[in-house]
Amino acid sequence: MDKFRVLEIKKSVFENNDREADKLREELKKEKTFLLNLMSSPGSGKTTTLKATIAALKDEMRIGVMEADIDSDVDAHTIAETGAKVIQLHTGGMCHLDAGMTKQGLEGLGTENIDFAILENVGNLVCPAEFDTGAVKNAMILSVPEGHDKPLKYPLMFSICDVLLVNKIDVMPYFDFDLEACKLYVTKLNPNIKIIPISARTGEGIDEWANWIREQVKQWNS
Amino acid sequence: MDKFRVLEIKKSVFENNDREADKLREELKKEKTFLLNLMSSPGSGKTTTLKATIAALKDEMRIGVMEADIDSDVDAHTIAETGAKVIQLHTGGMCHLDAGMTKQGLEGLGTENIDFAILENVGNLVCPAEFDTGAVKNAMILSVPEGHDKPLKYPLMFSICDVLLVNKIDVMPYFDFDLEACKLYVTKLNPNIKIIPISARTGEGIDEWANWIREQVKQWNS
Repeated sequence: MDKFRVLEIKKSVFENNDREADKLREELKKEKTFLLNLMSSPGSGKTTTLKATIAALKDEMRIGVMEADIDSDVDAHTIAETGAKVIQLHTGGMCHLDAGMTKQGLEGLGTENIDFAILENVGNLVCPAEFDTGAVKNAMILSVPEGHDKPLKYPLMFSICDVLLVNKIDVMPYFDFDLEACKLYVTKLNPNIKIIPISARTGEGIDEWANWIREQVKQWNS
Repeated sequence: MDKFRVLEIKKSVFENNDREADKLREELKKEKTFLLNLMSSPGSGKTTTLKATIAALKDEMRIGVMEADIDSDVDAHTIAETGAKVIQLHTGGMCHLDAGMTKQGLEGLGTENIDFAILENVGNLVCPAEFDTGAVKNAMILSVPEGHDKPLKYPLMFSICDVLLVNKIDVMPYFDFDLEACKLYVTKLNPNIKIIPISARTGEGIDEWANWIREQVKQWNS
């Protein structure tokens, strides 16, 4: 038997996505489930970061993951190996998730025993930024090989996130990535954003990231 | 004075994008302008590849570049330095270009003296794959740090391209990228695709890529 379910997400029928997102957050508050929406370009390391995150937190909170993808179950297989509860969401070609689609995913995952739920959004720096998923907080990953100029080109994504993980810092010597310039571009768009440099592969920075999550989950349940 | 114009692209009003795309190709054929649509994730090296491409071909053909971005003029500045004709297109938040938007860009660029026009599409592996821009050929870049599993997750993009550049092969030793697995995934989706490993930074593979373009431009004008 497979270790996870694959759910074909249907297009949302709601006209007012923001209202649906607020309703979803109210439900999550009641259930004491903290939902994080994780976004990035394709290949920036969302799934590897999730693996490291689960390893750091699985003994202190019950974690559930929704892996959204246009196609394939590659990521759900990877996450299932960590022992976390996981569901694969197929968006049927759609480039983002809105609150209605996220709600379908949460119903498929089952949140009654989940303290920390994560939506791994479709790899895309454009469309997911435009839709409130109903998550409590938005996180994004920018990886070193992508370059420090990305905040200039995809400003909305960097503006709506609460935390930015700068991933793959272990390969910094092989790329022309200026971390200080990146921080300047990002904080100009979003002065309150938390920026955490990490390497999901080596584990560098994962402690700080896990602490950030602990704090959010605690605040959400207080 | 700036070396390039910035054009705010308007939403297309055409109902049938495929018909508009065919009409645009007919016009390009009459004008003997070969249009290439270049797509990829954010940060895979489209602009650096274009710089290397222009350097290889500028003495034998007249090149014009349309830099499409949600925001910023970073890429147009970079391309202007090569001496190629360039225009910056702002999509106003839109995640892709269709044929009507490409036509606006070509009118802004002016194609009467251009043999080889390139549309650098918005960095996105999802939405641009769904819209025929009117280009003669579609090219995409997958960079080594993104991982060899991307064809499984973004199958449509890999299916509609005529050529795939696997970029940043100079950093292959620092990543778990399996080129043979990548080729298998891609050719299963698209048996006729041409795959060219390159490093836009070191110049490796650019000769083969330039030859592919020469052949396409020749065929288009014959």
